Amino acid sequence: MVWKLTKNEVDNHNLLLDESILSLGNGYLGVRGNFEEGYPETFSSIRGTYINAFHDETEITYGEKLYGYPVMQQKILNVIDSQGIEIYFDDEKFSVFEGELFHFERNLHMDQGFAERIVHWKSPKGREAKLHFKRIVSFITRELFAQEVTIEAIQGIQEVKIVSSLEGEVTNFVDLNDPRVASGHAKRLDVIEVRSEDAYNLIKDLTYVTELEVACISSSHIEAVDPHYSKTVGKSRIEEVYVCASSGEPIRFTKYNIYTDSLRHGDELVEVALPLHEKVKLQAFDDLVAEQGMYMARFWKNSDVVIEGDEKLQEGIRFNLYQLLQSVGKDPYSNIAAKGLSGEGYEGHYFWDTEIFMFPVFLMTNPEIAKNLLLHRYSILDSARARAKVMGHEKGALFPWRTINGPESSAFFPAGTAQYHISADIAYSYIQYYLVTKDEEFLQDYMAEMLFETARLWVDTGHFHNNQFKIDSVTGPDEYTCVVNNNYYTNKMAQHNLLWAEKVYRLLEEKAPSRLEEVAEKLELTEEEAEKWKEAGGKMYLPYHEELKIHAQDDSFLQKSRWDLEKTPADKFPLLLHYHPLTLYRYQVCKQADTVLAHFLLEDDVDEETLKNSYDYYEEITTHDSSLSYSVFSIMASKLGYQKRAYDYFRETARLDLDNTHGNTKDGLHMANMGGTWLAIVYGFAGLRVKETGLYLNPMLPEQWQSFHFHFQYLGRLINIHIEKDAVSYELLEGDELTIWHRGEAVALKQNRRLQVR
Amino acid sequence: MVWKLTKNEVDNHNLLLDESILSLGNGYLGVRGNFEEGYPETFSSIRGTYINAFHDETEITYGEKLYGYPVMQQKILNVIDSQGIEIYFDDEKFSVFEGELFHFERNLHMDQGFAERIVHWKSPKGREAKLHFKRIVSFITRELFAQEVTIEAIQGIQEVKIVSSLEGEVTNFVDLNDPRVASGHAKRLDVIEVRSEDAYNLIKDLTYVTELEVACISSSHIEAVDPHYSKTVGKSRIEEVYVCASSGEPIRFTKYNIYTDSLRHGDELVEVALPLHEKVKLQAFDDLVAEQGMYMARFWKNSDVVIEGDEKLQEGIRFNLYQLLQSVGKDPYSNIAAKGLSGEGYEGHYFWDTEIFMFPVFLMTNPEIAKNLLLHRYSILDSARARAKVMGHEKGALFPWRTINGPESSAFFPAGTAQYHISADIAYSYIQYYLVTKDEEFLQDYMAEMLFETARLWVDTGHFHNNQFKIDSVTGPDEYTCVVNNNYYTNKMAQHNLLWAEKVYRLLEEKAPSRLEEVAEKLELTEEEAEKWKEAGGKMYLPYHEELKIHAQDDSFLQKSRWDLEKTPADKFPLLLHYHPLTLYRYQVCKQADTVLAHFLLEDDVDEETLKNSYDYYEEITTHDSSLSYSVFSIMASKLGYQKRAYDYFRETARLDLDNTHGNTKDGLHMANMGGTWLAIVYGFAGLRVKETGLYLNPMLPEQWQSFHFHFQYLGRLINIHIEKDAVSYELLEGDELTIWHRGEAVALKQNRRLQVR
Repeated sequence: MVWKLTKNEVDNHNLLLDESILSLGNGYLGVRGNFEEGYPETFSSIRGTYINAFHDETEITYGEKLYGYPVMQQKILNVIDSQGIEIYFDDEKFSVFEGELFHFERNLHMDQGFAERIVHWKSPKGREAKLHFKRIVSFITRELFAQEVTIEAIQGIQEVKIVSSLEGEVTNFVDLNDPRVASGHAKRLDVIEVRSEDAYNLIKDLTYVTELEVACISSSHIEAVDPHYSKTVGKSRIEEVYVCASSGEPIRFTKYNIYTDSLRHGDELVEVALPLHEKVKLQAFDDLVAEQGMYMARFWKNSDVVIEGDEKLQEGIRFNLYQLLQSVGKDPYSNIAAKGLSGEGYEGHYFWDTEIFMFPVFLMTNPEIAKNLLLHRYSILDSARARAKVMGHEKGALFPWRTINGPESSAFFPAGTAQYHISADIAYSYIQYYLVTKDEEFLQDYMAEMLFETARLWVDTGHFHNNQFKIDSVTGPDEYTCVVNNNYYTNKMAQHNLLWAEKVYRLLEEKAPSRLEEVAEKLELTEEEAEKWKEAGGKMYLPYHEELKIHAQDDSFLQKSRWDLEKTPADKFPLLLHYHPLTLYRYQVCKQADTVLAHFLLEDDVDEETLKNSYDYYEEITTHDSSLSYSVFSIMASKLGYQKRAYDYFRETARLDLDNTHGNTKDGLHMANMGGTWLAIVYGFAGLRVKETGLYLNPMLPEQWQSFHFHFQYLGRLINIHIEKDAVSYELLEGDELTIWHRGEAVALKQNRRLQVR
Repeated sequence: MVWKLTKNEVDNHNLLLDESILSLGNGYLGVRGNFEEGYPETFSSIRGTYINAFHDETEITYGEKLYGYPVMQQKILNVIDSQGIEIYFDDEKFSVFEGELFHFERNLHMDQGFAERIVHWKSPKGREAKLHFKRIVSFITRELFAQEVTIEAIQGIQEVKIVSSLEGEVTNFVDLNDPRVASGHAKRLDVIEVRSEDAYNLIKDLTYVTELEVACISSSHIEAVDPHYSKTVGKSRIEEVYVCASSGEPIRFTKYNIYTDSLRHGDELVEVALPLHEKVKLQAFDDLVAEQGMYMARFWKNSDVVIEGDEKLQEGIRFNLYQLLQSVGKDPYSNIAAKGLSGEGYEGHYFWDTEIFMFPVFLMTNPEIAKNLLLHRYSILDSARARAKVMGHEKGALFPWRTINGPESSAFFPAGTAQYHISADIAYSYIQYYLVTKDEEFLQDYMAEMLFETARLWVDTGHFHNNQFKIDSVTGPDEYTCVVNNNYYTNKMAQHNLLWAEKVYRLLEEKAPSRLEEVAEKLELTEEEAEKWKEAGGKMYLPYHEELKIHAQDDSFLQKSRWDLEKTPADKFPLLLHYHPLTLYRYQVCKQADTVLAHFLLEDDVDEETLKNSYDYYEEITTHDSSLSYSVFSIMASKLGYQKRAYDYFRETARLDLDNTHGNTKDGLHMANMGGTWLAIVYGFAGLRVKETGLYLNPMLPEQWQSFHFHFQYLGRLINIHIEKDAVSYELLEGDELTIWHRGEAVALKQNRRLQVR
């Protein structure tokens, strides 16, 4: 049932893609799916090992620099390379690009959490061998990347030599056409320690600017008859060499690599790594795989989405969920990068992608992981406060458009810093978390402060005009129209932020007055401010076009010329690569869902006609040049009963990376779209919404499918929903009985009783 | 009568300013007012010699680069340094920063066109001498920079040594706080030839990227008793040394430097320079001064503005006119840089400053120079056509916001490329030229094509909406509000451009149909297009606020919050250095005149009430952070009868550089403001306007003055106007009789008859 993803290509184009697709990670550590032995020199490859949030800073150069522009940009680093394993059969080096390939197969075992490569190869001189590579990035010991190779000499081989390397001299990927090469942004790590002990090898690197350290402790082990062992220690590299006579028995080589970094492990990276290394060394590789499998089983139990009737899409959603799990940071130091841990695209930065497209997946399946994402945002609240000051605000918190540890890293403010909505998006995710968990402690400890500070931003940014609260000069989600007044999405989300801030203020006032006093004192907050939030939220201006009966994307959007998408040649997409931003700004044309996204996130108070007209209107002028677009259109198509469109958009999201439809999967996976796939099923087809008044479902089954089913968490319950042609069944698997809303009707769920509605 | 500007400071702050203020130039060559012998090491100085339009290109680096961003930026270069003259009295080197200064005086002789430095000095060891430095950048031989020093040994001096240098190894100015230092943008010239002949010394330099060459041929001469002469030729430097016994007679040293460049002088720079050098060598320095004086006399005859009653302002206007003459390019290769030839600020780029603030001065006093400015714009029309294409336009010409030889050099499009109005500004200057000269040949040869191509841009940029022609996503003159819809200034200027393009089309149709055919064929132009221009111009939308009865700066400007200028601390100005652009965009606050400027340039069809209300409204929210602002407010204050304000703003423009009120005169003079001073007198106090229906004057005398008078050219006539307390007199000095409009009444001028109106 589609648990194994298989990739059998060996051409450069596909191998480069597969490096992303077959990347392994655990939210802390990520390793791209590179060949251990490397590639021919003519091949391009992005060889990478990343630690979530482990970064350096580089100077941003501007042609013209203005006040408040970020000076430094954070950048995730490619760290110490432990992947290297070269294999020699007598005088011939193993390479699938020479000789003859009888068999070549790569699998990603999504049920067990490991990747493998199986090769049956004949060398140019006729030597024949079978090789089986396995690798794992452990969910149990997050610092561990483990490798295994089993080598079977089939014919003509006297001696097998294995050269295993640990390389500290690494750079980020550079493209010769990329100006960053010249400006020296690629190499950001110095090797500061290379040490060889009997039991392990160690390399430690230090970043140039942030002065963060990363260490890798590595050891290898061979099962072979009387192997000859030697070691070379260079200035930045340690090589271990095993030479074994070919005995007829398979040779089994394993290599365990433990990564620690000074963000999480303090100053004594080696001292922390050593016991971890000692511990994992006691485990056979198969044991590691087994415990990984148990972890995965627990994950899938709550998170899997089963589709009956389309294996391609089943593969898609499962792959996407698997990669989300691999990418999501599980400590408050980290979040989910736009490309996860699968590549260097977007420099490892965190965007609103987290809150709107990925957070909900974890919220509904693994609330503890979701909570960590919120804590990461809370951890950078001081940065957001500082940024608000720089941006001319007296009070409040303005979250950076892109960042790792807080400071704004966006170098183009109209499509970066100007996207003020990210602060409301973060507030939205806090509110959603509270609605799903009713975690009162979290509300008091974190959420109140977060909502208060973001609400303050809106009051300081907007102003009253004709007794309506208006927000000028911000950019909404659609980056083809920048710096506008009264972007509907922004105003609507800000309204939600403001009203909830006041609501939480009153909640605390009632239930935890002393806590409110503490927070108020810390923030120098007055009750008048809370009243202002209510007033601004209540009088929020939401642009509406009376004739078209749609929400206007912003004050001026609907007065512009419409871009003629029909007449635009196919090779001019994505538009941003072929038109100057000013050209795009001048037209009604959308990179992605904007108003339609607001209609998904905050559907109450919007009548069905407006939802439908708006969808129809904006769909016609949306290019989906952003990978964040399809899922939103799928969800809203489901809501509006556009079944075919819901399904078509869903298909676009489900296999976007597997089929490389955006053409840049080599730079890393499109994580937000992956979350969007799940959203399109759960919020789209199943019509799930969590509101103050409860949990709502409005399921529909795409006609192409026999059925689909999945689990979700809500208020401590675990619930299964199974959607078939003529029936929907609910089962409360964990937690107390609960009433939910199915197609507008209350349905009482009792534990372990399957409830079927037709 | 204030013809001599005197600067006697020797502190570093003032010397740096005086380098700009005492800079010499002739529109081709410019030399900053540096001390020949240099400064103490601890002093900062911008030592510079510039040739108008002589530039290299440097790569622009962007934090985030988008489609259509300029890749390269042009940059005027500091060229070969011929200023160096060091003087030794026995073992002591002359320096005003040591020993004792009995007298120190620097003069700029604006009537004669040269600068001098007069020093009476005693060395630390008690040697006493008088020195008199003179320098001239010739208006007769534009390639010539000539220097003279007269040295009088007063006491204790045995021997005088003069070391004169020519240095080819030069860089542009670098500030240690300027990131461009690191990126290697400062040094852009290689020395490619250093040659010493008996009759001259020669250095030739080559730019890195543009492969332009500049040569300097220099020779020196001494009048002294039996001087000992020697010469050192280095890799990039030639030094001539004269050692003379102190005879009691003054020693007179002269140095003539001829600059040629491959933009104007072809490939054989030396071959062209040699005869020029031969010719000027025959002239004594005093002869050069004399012929320069004759040139200046001719200039002042037509261009001087005489103010009776305020010497400070008289000095201001005269200095500004003098610097305009020194800065304006007099060949079609060049224009007027924002800082003239007085410094490197704004990289020697040409902006709309030319058309709106400086061109009118030349148009009304020296139409031939004005014509050259138009021809320079015509010479880059192809670049403007190419830029329009890049910016997504099918047809038309979009002039670059800043450029030297055509390509856009602006690295921040919201306040650069988005200022589409520059194309209409250029069209406006063509139309003004035509109205003042009725030069039908020019109209056919250049103006028609220029107007047609710019009109096309507007048709392609704008669109009809509710039967009005609207222009979205452009930036008006006010850079504190960027990328807006229907900027009044832009729409109004575009309307003028469109209607005149159609008018010229019809004019040609009638008077020169075969020429029209030629142009139409070249441009693939149809009559339908001309009709479209008329329609778009006729239906141009001009935003108006019914309640305030003012023109709105743009569609959304008046809905924003007003910036509280009262509450803004003084040290927060100019705002752009203390607030992020987004913060500024969010408020009603103007860097400079925008709507008010449109009201000055195109006053017809706007009723007095709107003019007045608009002025009152915008004045309150304008910071004048741009030096282009005061003059416009002065002119419109004159028009509206706000005499005090007209005068106060005029005072701000007249001495902006002399008093360094913007704090950055060291980087070069504010040329547009200098033009603005003249505009504030002629268009402001004298109320001059040139329209299709004739020439209008509406004079008023500031009450602080006894009178003022000036000349202007119009339709081949030279006219003098003298404005006194109770009377205005006109005198037609050259040309046939003519009727002009004085305060709305026709006044017939007859040659050499003084006409006085009361």
